[in-house]
Amino acid sequence: MKNNFGIAIHGGAGTILRKNLTPKLEQQFRTALRLSIESGKSILENGGTSLDAVQAAVVVMEDSDQFNAGKGAVFTNDETNEMDSSIMCGKTLACGCGTLLRHIKNPIIFARTVMEKSEHVLLASDGAEQFAKLHDIEIVDAKYFHTKRRWFQLQVVKESDDNKAILDHDGDNSKHGTVGAVALDKDGNLAAATSSGGMTNKKYNRIGDTPMIGAGTYADNATCAVSTTGHGEYFMRLVTAKDICDMISYKQFSIDLATKEAIKKLTAIDGSGGVIAIDNNGNIAMPMNCAGMYRASFSADDKEPSVKIFVEE
Amino acid sequence: MKNNFGIAIHGGAGTILRKNLTPKLEQQFRTALRLSIESGKSILENGGTSLDAVQAAVVVMEDSDQFNAGKGAVFTNDETNEMDSSIMCGKTLACGCGTLLRHIKNPIIFARTVMEKSEHVLLASDGAEQFAKLHDIEIVDAKYFHTKRRWFQLQVVKESDDNKAILDHDGDNSKHGTVGAVALDKDGNLAAATSSGGMTNKKYNRIGDTPMIGAGTYADNATCAVSTTGHGEYFMRLVTAKDICDMISYKQFSIDLATKEAIKKLTAIDGSGGVIAIDNNGNIAMPMNCAGMYRASFSADDKEPSVKIFVEE
Repeated sequence: MKNNFGIAIHGGAGTILRKNLTPKLEQQFRTALRLSIESGKSILENGGTSLDAVQAAVVVMEDSDQFNAGKGAVFTNDETNEMDSSIMCGKTLACGCGTLLRHIKNPIIFARTVMEKSEHVLLASDGAEQFAKLHDIEIVDAKYFHTKRRWFQLQVVKESDDNKAILDHDGDNSKHGTVGAVALDKDGNLAAATSSGGMTNKKYNRIGDTPMIGAGTYADNATCAVSTTGHGEYFMRLVTAKDICDMISYKQFSIDLATKEAIKKLTAIDGSGGVIAIDNNGNIAMPMNCAGMYRASFSADDKEPSVKIFVEE
Repeated sequence: MKNNFGIAIHGGAGTILRKNLTPKLEQQFRTALRLSIESGKSILENGGTSLDAVQAAVVVMEDSDQFNAGKGAVFTNDETNEMDSSIMCGKTLACGCGTLLRHIKNPIIFARTVMEKSEHVLLASDGAEQFAKLHDIEIVDAKYFHTKRRWFQLQVVKESDDNKAILDHDGDNSKHGTVGAVALDKDGNLAAATSSGGMTNKKYNRIGDTPMIGAGTYADNATCAVSTTGHGEYFMRLVTAKDICDMISYKQFSIDLATKEAIKKLTAIDGSGGVIAIDNNGNIAMPMNCAGMYRASFSADDKEPSVKIFVEE
């Protein structure tokens, strides 16, 4: 057992500007991020697995109505909530994902259960919920996800000129984003997890990058663990999470260089967002090409977690 | 405009053994594969795009009841048909995918339309069909997909001991597989397309690798175009199509070496299947780790298409 470990989390990225964030709201976000990272950190400190740590950190954000995942998921054009999730084990490459989930309280617990109890990787929609019931995963009424703020955001978008699907964090700061976590445990095992409510006003049962292994989430003990947040379609085209792992594996890039290169590619095709990643030595990188990303990190050497929002912090 | 071009197709891979394939059935497959590759070849010869060529080749296989895609799609446990598809343009990295499609005659035409007419990459289920109707994509009654042979296959699996989802081509030779095509056109542009009915007896709205950009399908003019066929969950864990591109890009592997390495990785985690790939010089590779893969290829230098089934051909 090595004594090295670490965890990084994100709660969404986008046009998060100081001028739009009141001191009170900013404090609420920093507190929520701290709660999330502390939950993962304490598992790792006590010798727990990276899978348990990323799951715990994501559950905290899913249960908060501040983030676009679980309780705080944004609304589709049909005024429903459709959630996506994924989790991956870097030791075995086992993974589990869910998409078009409408009644599962914690999509990340669903993903973990698919990984461990199913022969499949990705289950969707009503079938996913049948599977959830068989495995005693908590099902809630759709109204659990009906927060006033998200419903109001949908109305604003619907009344706008173009009536397009928009990212949760674009526009104003009462909107936030996808959540995710990556971790290295004391046994040297990596894990990654991502959970999302997708885009406000999305139509046609659009599925984003969150439940796509390789795009929104990847973990491989040979290289690193990655979770992305931003405009999912661009991460899907670039298969960003796997690309970062491959630059480390095949080009011997550092995690810092590989993640920066991935953000460059994202910028080159007009995509926006950020990534969090941790390598098998515990090095953490969290680059972005937008004004802010709700994020936090903790490494074995640190006294306490670092919590950040704006790009220049 | 270069004068180099080429196309490769597959109609599924698995335990396809000579002893189980009657001469008549074998001839039917070779004829169907020839029809498919000829349709793509003639587009390329006439200066058409690789996107049009892969789409045309896949449509031929979707319209045949011999392959597990479109007309010949296998049944789910619920006795429905749920189809997946994806297409990608190597020049722009634009891509489109569909999943849980139940009434769309040609899932590959749907994927092409998502790529060209939508802001999204992947649309699913009822929402996907709403989008299809808006874009005049042919919708058919579910009974169009109800072939006697596929229904009989489902009953056999349901009555078996384990009642598990099985790959279309495993078990006996009346079952076939996912279809796909990759092509390079005279303008030097690559494209890849994949279409599938998934696994016989699948449950819980399982989604496989076909609609996952990077797993079942990838195309990038900088490297190559790839389509996979086999046990999808393993391709998802390895993100096989993107991995092949990255070995070419980052390690300067030839397409032959990169695809063989990908099959080695598949074997190492107990996955089975095959891949077809074409690079930006028109070199084609079609390795597998199973007894056979329905496949065909044509390069600018060839007199006529090469059509093969068994591994040792």
